[in-house]
Parts: sequence; structure tokens; C-alpha cells
Amino acid sequence: MIFFNSDYNQGAHPEVLEALIKTNSEHTDGYGLDPHCENAAKLIRELIGDETREVHFMIGGTPCNITFAAAVLKPWQSVIAARTGHIYFHETGALEGTGHRIVTAEAPNGKLTPGLIDRALEEYQDEHTPEPALVYISQPTELGTIYKKAELKALYAKCRERGLLLYIDGARLGAALTCGENDADIRDIAALSDAFYIGGTKNGALFGEALVLRPGLCEGRFRHMIKRQCGMLAKGRLIGVQFEALLAGGEESLYYRIARHENEMASILREGLIRLGVRFDGDSPTNQLFPILPAGVVNTLKQDFFFYEWRREKDGMIPIRLVTSWGTERSEADAFLKRLGELMQK
Amino acid sequence: MIFFNSDYNQGAHPEVLEALIKTNSEHTDGYGLDPHCENAAKLIRELIGDETREVHFMIGGTPCNITFAAAVLKPWQSVIAARTGHIYFHETGALEGTGHRIVTAEAPNGKLTPGLIDRALEEYQDEHTPEPALVYISQPTELGTIYKKAELKALYAKCRERGLLLYIDGARLGAALTCGENDADIRDIAALSDAFYIGGTKNGALFGEALVLRPGLCEGRFRHMIKRQCGMLAKGRLIGVQFEALLAGGEESLYYRIARHENEMASILREGLIRLGVRFDGDSPTNQLFPILPAGVVNTLKQDFFFYEWRREKDGMIPIRLVTSWGTERSEADAFLKRLGELMQK
Amino acid sequence: MIFFNSDYNQGAHPEVLEALIKTNSEHTDGYGLDPHCENAAKLIRELIGDETREVHFMIGGTPCNITFAAAVLKPWQSVIAARTGHIYFHETGALEGTGHRIVTAEAPNGKLTPGLIDRALEEYQDEHTPEPALVYISQPTELGTIYKKAELKALYAKCRERGLLLYIDGARLGAALTCGENDADIRDIAALSDAFYIGGTKNGALFGEALVLRPGLCEGRFRHMIKRQCGMLAKGRLIGVQFEALLAGGEESLYYRIARHENEMASILREGLIRLGVRFDGDSPTNQLFPILPAGVVNTLKQDFFFYEWRREKDGMIPIRLVTSWGTERSEADAFLKRLGELMQK
Amino acid sequence: MIFFNSDYNQGAHPEVLEALIKTNSEHTDGYGLDPHCENAAKLIRELIGDETREVHFMIGGTPCNITFAAAVLKPWQSVIAARTGHIYFHETGALEGTGHRIVTAEAPNGKLTPGLIDRALEEYQDEHTPEPALVYISQPTELGTIYKKAELKALYAKCRERGLLLYIDGARLGAALTCGENDADIRDIAALSDAFYIGGTKNGALFGEALVLRPGLCEGRFRHMIKRQCGMLAKGRLIGVQFEALLAGGEESLYYRIARHENEMASILREGLIRLGVRFDGDSPTNQLFPILPAGVVNTLKQDFFFYEWRREKDGMIPIRLVTSWGTERSEADAFLKRLGELMQK
Repeated sequence: MIFFNSDYNQGAHPEVLEALIKTNSEHTDGYGLDPHCENAAKLIRELIGDETREVHFMIGGTPCNITFAAAVLKPWQSVIAARTGHIYFHETGALEGTGHRIVTAEAPNGKLTPGLIDRALEEYQDEHTPEPALVYISQPTELGTIYKKAELKALYAKCRERGLLLYIDGARLGAALTCGENDADIRDIAALSDAFYIGGTKNGALFGEALVLRPGLCEGRFRHMIKRQCGMLAKGRLIGVQFEALLAGGEESLYYRIARHENEMASILREGLIRLGVRFDGDSPTNQLFPILPAGVVNTLKQDFFFYEWRREKDGMIPIRLVTSWGTERSEADAFLKRLGELMQK
Repeated sequence: MIFFNSDYNQGAHPEVLEALIKTNSEHTDGYGLDPHCENAAKLIRELIGDETREVHFMIGGTPCNITFAAAVLKPWQSVIAARTGHIYFHETGALEGTGHRIVTAEAPNGKLTPGLIDRALEEYQDEHTPEPALVYISQPTELGTIYKKAELKALYAKCRERGLLLYIDGARLGAALTCGENDADIRDIAALSDAFYIGGTKNGALFGEALVLRPGLCEGRFRHMIKRQCGMLAKGRLIGVQFEALLAGGEESLYYRIARHENEMASILREGLIRLGVRFDGDSPTNQLFPILPAGVVNTLKQDFFFYEWRREKDGMIPIRLVTSWGTERSEADAFLKRLGELMQK
Repeated sequence: MIFFNSDYNQGAHPEVLEALIKTNSEHTDGYGLDPHCENAAKLIRELIGDETREVHFMIGGTPCNITFAAAVLKPWQSVIAARTGHIYFHETGALEGTGHRIVTAEAPNGKLTPGLIDRALEEYQDEHTPEPALVYISQPTELGTIYKKAELKALYAKCRERGLLLYIDGARLGAALTCGENDADIRDIAALSDAFYIGGTKNGALFGEALVLRPGLCEGRFRHMIKRQCGMLAKGRLIGVQFEALLAGGEESLYYRIARHENEMASILREGLIRLGVRFDGDSPTNQLFPILPAGVVNTLKQDFFFYEWRREKDGMIPIRLVTSWGTERSEADAFLKRLGELMQK
Repeated sequence: MIFFNSDYNQGAHPEVLEALIKTNSEHTDGYGLDPHCENAAKLIRELIGDETREVHFMIGGTPCNITFAAAVLKPWQSVIAARTGHIYFHETGALEGTGHRIVTAEAPNGKLTPGLIDRALEEYQDEHTPEPALVYISQPTELGTIYKKAELKALYAKCRERGLLLYIDGARLGAALTCGENDADIRDIAALSDAFYIGGTKNGALFGEALVLRPGLCEGRFRHMIKRQCGMLAKGRLIGVQFEALLAGGEESLYYRIARHENEMASILREGLIRLGVRFDGDSPTNQLFPILPAGVVNTLKQDFFFYEWRREKDGMIPIRLVTSWGTERSEADAFLKRLGELMQK
């Protein structure tokens, strides 16, 4: 069985694992108050070129999204997001669980626009509706698409014009930063948002994400909020150690290398699929692909490859999702394309 | 100034006020544990022909909606409602404030259908999205339209098929029950829902609504929930006294008489508007009307009449909302039509 | 049956009722945006001698306490209160329902002290415990006792020293303001707190309380919060009308007259009880008394008088609670003392 | 520097780490739906001798406590716990953050008793106070003490008598199970509770705990709840892999061996301290010790040993906390005792 189901179906990249092994017997203080977390935070501040930002190491992406939003929103405030956004579509109402509405927009390609933000704000008139205060986007989006730098600039300008915070979910940030279409580097991501996170889980870590905040957003009490939201790890250094391993070396670091690998493997698949005449659901330049295949082909492919059907069958065709990971090998991509080629010829 | 802004712009209907005056010096126990509340609950059980239902007297409509939903939903569950539904559009995120999502549907005429419920359920797949457990509708809807008996039957059947509770917001229930188009009486409302409320505030009371529940929905602890949600009135009998005054006499009671009056006044307006060639936004048979008038006419009318603009101007036309109340007089409706006629001729 | 069970066992004081009757047919805007609420707020600002304060008319005392606390607390913050405080003891966890802890103190006579605040703060060390941010007290306390002006000054100084807000629950504020022991007038109450409310329900209103806030505490969004917490009344003017009737005339107003009457009736009872050799549970100078009577006497008294047993029987004695109200008559107090005298002689 | 600050100051026990290394490149499904989690759950069901229990692998102890309590409590219900309980004292109000009160009891040695439960229930009278529904205890307690089997039986009987669920926080369960005083094995823990967890973090894992529930407690929706509370790990198998390594072999497994080691190291310290005439704060038979030392001695010890001061200095004496871990070596305990002996002689 060859796996294209996700970028979290194996453990850590060997170099990350090596760092955990090497530091395993060290004694440190707990809860993220250790030299590794301190050093990893320093690496991040250098990478984004802003020494003022707060960095917090979090257990996962949903904890980043929810802890941040719940920390900065007043009880009567809401979040604006695409209906395809992870915070709406894949977090079991965790944000509403903290008492806030998500105002959803039907966003083409999973991407919010200044116009969609304006439209969402039309729903807010006075004290009888919640007041939008935070815009949630993902880079890349849940559909694999990316915001270009000009789009991010326009979104952030709109947010500032309308008094909104802008948050970027970077679960697969590496895949965006290193894909061919991209023109927004991590300094842009930092400069054009109020908070974002650098995803580790889907980029070679065992687990863990690095949340980066503009200073003053949470009155210096963000650690209280992490603990209150059940997200503080006793052996917090584990995340620091992994981000040290991932980020040492800036844009030549392991983090970027893993992301480039994911994108390269995806490109091989994409180009092969195009050669086979396959159409795609959306136009993802990153490590998630959504080819639309005949139902019969999908069912046969499943015998040797593990992937998810993305949407229901329609007119005999099924969009599936293929995801590449740090461990995806060229031979696996080739095997997939070869088998598909055979099936398409029949 | 003549008022068509709402059905809550005056105090109580004189007969309701009289009941409050007559009982003012009585001594009773507090928090709704008094003979008036007991008697009013009995009147309601007789009216709906079901002695098993719990009746709770609530301060307002939003407290009914939120207290009920928060009482019956598990933390991971959500509500399905029309995006025009009061619980979504006019309650400042109170439902999300209790930790639950509202999954919204674009509902023509403000009315949910079995098909829209099925579509909303498609968003729920597994533990990664909240589980819909409650359907919220209003009778009449926020757009003044009503569900026919066959529509309610179909909705309730769909809810039972999909394991959902059905709740009916009856803020203006009287207006639905007594309008010409209606074929679902209050026994039907009770039989075809798991909970509903009989709105007092917009039907002649100073304030107060009667929430009616199937037994067992809240483990006999609904009073705990009322108090926890800040909705328990110390002088709780005030609501009991008003509902005694409103409901004594069944379908010939003051409640029905007020509702019929509201609808009659609306009919005078509706027919006059049609004679003047005015078109409407939606097709409300109850005491809310949404005529679409030229912007210039609207601005002149405002000098003598108080009403709300319902949506923004488009192509020089503005939909306004006219609402009739227990205190609306025929002469007021006539005056409006006369003035409008003059303005339309210019 | 003669009622000493509470100060909310009758309707409104006749002069309050008269105001409601007189204004009943007026048309106004809803949700508290009407001339009566505006005028009543003006009367309150004059009474406290501070034109800068926000005034909001609320449905009840619990809504005041919870809406205010939930509006000003950050998610990781907590409230400090006496374990006998209404917010802890009689609101079914409504405050926790909004996500915040109440750190309780064992407070003699129901009164917090600067020392008890310091001790409660010892429980807070770092991000592993919630951060106290608000101190809740009641004037008078739930045990009928009052804070002297010097005590309030010391509490408020301590709060400012420790970065805490001070909130005063004034459910029975009139009874404190007009009792013999009191030396803190309503200007002191305002000056020595960040927010407080003037209780209407237990001082002659049908219902309703006036919440008074220092400006800026809720970013001008307190009305959003009222609606979100389900506390906004459609016919909001009803509370404005009642407070106009209660507060016109300042310290000679109906509000003060009712409170003085409650205290006078309580004094008759207190002095009579003392003459009969009865001891008290606590030392309340206001309209709640807690005489300790033999169990047999209590059971016989219950045949003619309605009151609550305050605590369980101990050594054959039961502390009961007697409350006087706007409607309590001297003859009722005399009848109670006479009957008790007879029973004590046996 | 020698570390006695906690049992989470190093990484994983080498055998646990080895299991992670060995399985690192395997491909599996995510979110805990993998063969390792399945196998580890099977090991746990065998260990407790009950095949009906649900097992969920959680990221940490606070997520276990809060997710379970929030899943089973109705909005108006509360938890009873010792004021020293972790859920009250060290979780930043996370439980209240889900809308529920913790009713605290002053519990000698950190241990609840049937009598303390009865007393806590006295605070609950009717719909005006939250209804206690869950009792939270820890085995061992936060003070290192343990419940004997008879005590657990009495607590569970009391809970069933009063309609309460009993939950056991097993953050350091191994230390309780393997200490000399203990007479309750893990089958007893399971049989005498409705839910408990087997703590991994403080017993040799990198992180992770195994929550064990009686079936039916959460309508088969506990995974929804884990996700909604932000506690679902993408690479969920990591916890399964670790618990396989820890629990294979039952009472001779690595889990028990690590725990025995922790207790042995603590015993060496305890006996040495007693020989030196040191008194203790509480009487812990497990891997946490609370010796009371002269302030001067404490300050000098800090130069070479890392530990926490447990309470403030009083009369020149300070209780400190010493914790032993999987990595604590006999030579470290000896070094501490030697140095202390020298300092005590001066």
C-alpha cells in the first residue's frame, strides 16, 4: 500500500527525530520554559525579521486557531472565514465552543477577498448581531491554493480599514512558501498579519506548531490562555527541540527542504496527471492535489493506494485528494501514475 | 407621528394591564411558583390538548430560544436554521455564546424545507464537524410568511427521520394562527414540534412568553437552566397573570382577538398598497408587510410615520417594513394609505 | 396569612404602577432607546453627581451581575466573592456558565475585607491558576449587613492597589442607604466602585435594575453584551418609566421612601424580638432579619405567617428569615410580635 | 545541577523512545485510528479486566480532566473537588471555561471523604444553585497521598448513593499502584470509578495519557468532544505506540517498572531525611516528598539542586517539594542527602 492520504501519516523526519533523541536525557524546566523553546523562538524572530513578536509553541493547529481567537475576541465578537476554512469545516465547532460565531463566506478557491469581507460585514448592523473582529485565512488554503503577496496586502489593508485583526493559519505554510507560484516570503506573512503560525505537524515534526503574535495582543497573558484551553505541554521543550531542528539555517533549513520536497513530489504527480488528461477540482500549486477520476478507476486504485475521496461522486466522476509528505518517494509517485495510466487506457 | 415600526412600541393591551392592576397587591411566592403561573400553564395545556407538556414562563423570545437550545444540546452539537432566522440574525450570537454553532441555510421566504435540512446535514460527516441536533424555525417567519400544516408535517417527519429536535419560535404565533392562509392550529403546532413558545410581548403583553416542552427533554431540570441563563424573574407571577388574561377562553380569548386585530389592520394596509400598485418584498399574510417604495416617497413618509427601512436602496427603490399591533387603529392605516396615494400620484 | 418571605411577593408600589398605567398607550422605540430610559438615566447621573457614567436598564439582578462580569473579564480571569455572595450562592453557576471562576472567601457577616482579598490573591501565582480581576460585593450583603464608608474606601483602595475592579450588587441598595447605621450615600457607592446597580425589584418596581458603569469599561459595546446575554427587553421603556417614578426627587424620591418604610417595618420587628429576648443570626440593620427561634415555635408560627427557614435546626433552634417590603404594614409586624410573644410564654 | 523539580524534566524513558524510533517510518491513518492505538487499548482492557470500557488516548492530563467533565456534565451541573485538586489548583480555570463550577472542599491530606461530599451537597438546595454531578479525585493526590481500597469503595458507594459520577485523575497513577502502602490495584481503580486515566507523561512517556471510560457515558461521541476541545492529535498513533511500549507485560510492564523506580528513589530520600530528623508536610508514600527545611539550608541547597519551594516560609522554615522520575539515579539521591547532612550539622 502506498500512502497519499495525508502529510501526517508517518512519524517525524529523521533529522527531527535525531534532535529529539540527542536531547532526550537533558533535564529542563517544564511547560515551554526551557532553553530549546527560547532558542527556537529566537530563530523564528530572526527568520521573520521582527524581534518584537511573541512566539508560543503549541500542540496542534486547532489549538493555535482557537486559543488565539478566544484570547483576542470580546464575548460579542465574531470571526469571518471561508466556509471551506479549517476553523469552520474541520474543528467540530471548537471556536463556537468558546462562545463566538464564525460568519462564513462562499469563497471561490477557498480564498477570502476584500469584497467578501465587506459583504460579511453587511450582516453586522448594530447590537443585535455579533461584531466581526477577526478574519481567518489559511496559507495555503484547505484547497491547496495560495494567496499572492498583492492579495495578502489587499486583505490586510481591508482588515485595518474595517478594524479587524487578520490571522493566517499556516498548517502547511512551508508548502505555500516554497511552491512555484508563491511571491510572499515568511517576512511578508508576518508583516501582513496580526498573528500566524508555522505548522510543524505537516512539515516533518512529530507534532507542534509555532504561533507568532504581534506584541500586546493578549496583554502578556497568552500563556494563561494556553493553559486555560488545555494546550500546555508538560514536556514543552519537545516542540522547541523540533523547531530548532527544523528552522536552523533560515530559508535553507530543514523546514524549507521538507516543504520543497513535498511540492516536488506533488509536481511530479500533477504533471503526470495532466499528461493523462485528468482535470482537477481547483488549481492547487502546493502539496495537495484534487484530480477528478472516474469512479471505477478510483475504486481500483484504492487496492494499492490510500487516499481520500474529497467529494461525492457526480456524473460518474469523483474528486480525490492526493497529499505528498516528507516521506513521499519519487518511486511512489511514479507507481501511482503508472497504475493510473494503465487504468485510464482501458 | 403614526407608528408602524413594531408590535412592541406600546405597553400592554388594556385588558392585560387591568389584570396586572387587579392582582398587584396579592402576596405570592416568587420565581414563577405561584397560582397564576400554575393556572396559566393549565390554560395552555388545555388549549393544545396535551396535559403532559411542561410550560415555563420566560422573560422574552431570545431567552426562550437560547435557554431551550442550550439545555438540550450536547457540547458537540449544532442548530440548523435559516440565515434569516431570528436566532442567527438578531440575537448577537447568543446561541454561539452557549458554545454551539448555527448551521445556516439560504431559505427562500425565510422557510426551511426537508431538502434544506438534508443539505445542511451534508456538512456533517464525522467527529471533525459538529453534529446537528436541533432545527430552529419561526412561525410566522421573520419575513412574515407561514408554514402550512403539510409543510410542518414534512419538516417534523424529516427531523424524526434524521434524529433532530424541532423547535418553533412563536414570537408572533398569534399572527400566524389567525391569518387567512393558515391551516395549522395551535394543537398542530404542539403536535408537530418538540418545543415551541407562545409569544406574549408582540401580542399584547408587557413582556413574557410561554415556552412549551415535550416532557423529559431536560431531565426535569429546566428551571435550573432558566436560572443559570439569568432568565428567572423574581416576581415571576407577572407573566402568569398576563397569560391568564390573554388565554382564558381558548380560541376566543384575548390572545386570538389581538392577533386577529393585528392581521386585520395589516390586511387593510396590504389591500390599499396593492390598489396603489405597490409590489412587496416577499409575500407575508401576517402583520408584517414589506412594500417596496421609491426612495423619495419613503423619505417624505418618514415625516409623519415611523417605520424601518428593511433593506438598502436599490435602483431608487427601498423595501420598508410596516408592522401592525394591538393598538393600531383603522384610521392610522387609512391615513398612511391616503398619504402614500398622494405621494405616488406626484 | 401574613407574608415576611421576601420583598418581591407583591406587584409594584402603587405609584410605580400608576406611572406604567399613565404611559401605557404611548408609542416609543424599543430596546431601551426611548425618552423614559434617557430621562431615568439622567436622574441617576444627577443623583450620583457624575455625568460621565453609563447607565443601562436591566431585567434583574442576576443579569446585572453576570452581564457586567462577563463583559469585563478576559477568559483567563476570575471573580473574588464571599461564599455567601449572591453571585456564588444563588445564581446556579451563571457566572461560571460564562467561563469564569468565582474564588470564594469565608467572609464573616458576609463582608469581604482587604485582608480576605489579599488571601484570595495568594491562590493566584502564575499562568497555572486564573487571574483574579474583579471583586464582587453586595450592599447590603445577603445577610443584611452593610459596609461602612471607611470599609468601602479600604476595599476600593485595595482593589486599585491590586489591579482589580470593584463591583457592588445593589439588589437592596435602598435598604442600605436608608438604614440607621449607614454613612455611605449613593455618591459614595458610585465613587467607591467601578460599577454598581440600583435595585428596583426589591424596592417597589415590578422588575428592573439600573446598572451604572464607569465609562470605557466595555468599549461602548455594553448593549451588544446585554443582547448577547439574552437580557434586552423589547419594551425596554418599562424599566425607564419605573425608574423615573422611583427616582424623581433624589433622596426624597419614592425609592428612598420605600426603602425607609422597609427599614422602619424591620426595626419594629427587630425591637420587638429583642424585647422578647430573641437572639439573631448576624446583626442586620436592614430589612432582612434572622431571628433564632425554637423549632416548635417556628412550626406554629408558620400556620399564620409565611417566611423561610434560613438554616437547619441545631440544638432545637432554627434561624428564620423575615423580610419587610414596600407593602408591609405596621399591623402585620405587630401581629407577628403578638403571636410570637404568646408562643414564647408557653 | 541535580533535578528533583518534577517527573517531566527529561524526555521519554529509553524504551519508550526506542518504540517511537522503530515505528517512525510506518504509514498509518491519523487521529488515533491506527493499529497501535487499537492494540494499546486492548492491552489496557486486559490489564483492568474489563472489555467493555472505552479507551481514548489524550495529549495531557488537563485535556483528560476537562474533556471528560465537559462531556458528561449538563450546563447546570458542577464538580466536587478538593481545593488542592489539580482541576481547581493548577488548570487556570479550564473547567469553569467550559461553563461549570468546581465546588471546593477543604480536604485534609488532599483526600476527599464521603463526609466532605455530603457537606458539599449541602450547598445544593434547588434550582438556585448548580447541581453537583461529578466527583473529582486524584490517585495519588497532589500531595502524594493515596486512597486505600476501602476509602475508594466508600467514596464510590457515596457517589452512587447521591447520583454522582466518580472520576480519578491518574497523572501519577503508577506511583500509587506501586507504592508500599497501596492495596488498590488497577482493576480496583477501574471498578471503583466511572472514568480514570493512566498517566503517561509523568511515568516515562514523552507525553500522552490513556483515558478509560465506562461505556455509554458520552453517547459514543467522545471523539467529537476530543476534537471540539482541541485535543485530537493528527499523528495520534504516537500515544498508542508509547502505551504499547509502556503496558506490554501487565504488572511486570515498563510502566510498573518505571513507577517502582520512582518510588524506590523517593524512599531513599525519605528514609535519609527521616534519619536527618527532618519533618514533612503531609505524609506522602509516593514519588513526591515535602520535607520542611530551614530557609538558610534551602537557599544553599538551591545552588546544586533544582526543586520548588512548596509554600511560603513560616517561622524560618520552608516546605520544599522533591520529585523523583524515571531518570533519577541513586547517586543523585545520595548526593542530596549528603549535602543536606552537611548543611544540617552546621
